Amino acid sequence: MNPWPVPDPDLPADVHPALALTARAAARAYGTARARHTRAELREEIADGADGTPTMRVDRYVEDAIASAAARAGVNLLSEEAGFVDNGSATTLVVDPVDGSANAALGVPLSCFAGALVLDEEPREALTVWFDTGRAWHAKADVPTPFRTTGRTGLRGANVCLMRPKRGTEEAWLRVANQADRVRVLCTTCLEAALVAEGSVDAFADPGSDTHRLMDLMAALVTVPAAGGALLDLRGRPLTFGLDLSRRWSGIAAATPELADELIATILG
Amino acid sequence: MNPWPVPDPDLPADVHPALALTARAAARAYGTARARHTRAELREEIADGADGTPTMRVDRYVEDAIASAAARAGVNLLSEEAGFVDNGSATTLVVDPVDGSANAALGVPLSCFAGALVLDEEPREALTVWFDTGRAWHAKADVPTPFRTTGRTGLRGANVCLMRPKRGTEEAWLRVANQADRVRVLCTTCLEAALVAEGSVDAFADPGSDTHRLMDLMAALVTVPAAGGALLDLRGRPLTFGLDLSRRWSGIAAATPELADELIATILG
Repeated sequence: MNPWPVPDPDLPADVHPALALTARAAARAYGTARARHTRAELREEIADGADGTPTMRVDRYVEDAIASAAARAGVNLLSEEAGFVDNGSATTLVVDPVDGSANAALGVPLSCFAGALVLDEEPREALTVWFDTGRAWHAKADVPTPFRTTGRTGLRGANVCLMRPKRGTEEAWLRVANQADRVRVLCTTCLEAALVAEGSVDAFADPGSDTHRLMDLMAALVTVPAAGGALLDLRGRPLTFGLDLSRRWSGIAAATPELADELIATILG
Repeated sequence: MNPWPVPDPDLPADVHPALALTARAAARAYGTARARHTRAELREEIADGADGTPTMRVDRYVEDAIASAAARAGVNLLSEEAGFVDNGSATTLVVDPVDGSANAALGVPLSCFAGALVLDEEPREALTVWFDTGRAWHAKADVPTPFRTTGRTGLRGANVCLMRPKRGTEEAWLRVANQADRVRVLCTTCLEAALVAEGSVDAFADPGSDTHRLMDLMAALVTVPAAGGALLDLRGRPLTFGLDLSRRWSGIAAATPELADELIATILG
């Protein structure tokens, strides 16, 4: 069993109630799952999600808690396991219940809740909560956040988080690693995007594996630009709201648009 | 500035006073450094350490606090910046004041204190404290710890932490990455070794860059075996106490000796 507690999220006062309610419910559910199950049980794949990827037991715990919370809050839900749940609202909560599911199941203390509120197909507000510490990053679209990106414009000497190299992306991965000062691989896109937004690393990139789904990027799409950075797709595909969960992107989060462009050029070779 | 607090370490009652005193002093000093300095200031290289690597300002803050605490505790100190400080004791504290210095300076919340008590050249007790959470892993030589490794014996499907690929180790790095289920790069050897010891990942490896100094491995040399795992050098060099800070190793921490052997074979190709 994983002995460490999952604290209640430390949220700013002005977080939208639907985001606050679901983030708190997610943290509580993850804490309960860790207290009840071994690491192997948390990791067990018990179903296939609406997005076509397997659902681990830990995902199910958190997803169920979020679905209840979204219904209580009276907003629709778009989530990787459940798909779209219409609660009759003009507002949809796009959520990755457990970003970094493998970490969350194993006990690697790098996983988070990431949610974005979408009104009329436009993301308006986002919240990312690091489960193991309760640290939260909150942003509203086009409103500058108190935390800021590093402002770095060039890749040489940058500190970069990368998605782990998957088959076919090894060369691009190494090109970035060789240009950067240091690379890190934390296996949790939403938390890595929050680290870009708060200025702890200069950038995060999926070097071409097209792994990201809408819920992996929606919170960052609000948070990173509000902190002064850029959130783009490697191949220029528009990052727009929609209910088709088969869409995929290779997300690039960077301290500045210039750094995002250099990362993209380096990855595409 | 980095706005997050550095909590007081959460230590078991039976930690040796010299380890407890220095760990608490280290956490306080890192908290002070974060409150006083920007990320750029923390990262500034202000001297060369006794081990020949540059000393960042954040290292200096924590190292100074540890040197005072070791003197108060009446033990000798062997540390990467100060080298050997003889306080007239039979006991020497071997310490990495800030493991993951680059993370600690930037604000990536993955850095730790790691100390080992050495009596008559034998490491007897170790303590690792993750600064950003206060989580602590304590072990005494040959005494089983409450936390245990995963017990995994094979690399295929394993969850592995790797040192970032440095020039000349890229091929070995990718061989491990392709065999494992997932790789992570956290850039903090001592914390990654603690994650091996507590069973959150199966192994950690430096794939041949010979980066590790004595203080990077001494705490793990007590903690990982006490948790059921193995701590070895890639090329079979003995991991023994000594005052020569020019010695280097490529440390391998694994859930079992079998997994350590397979990792070594895979890296050496």
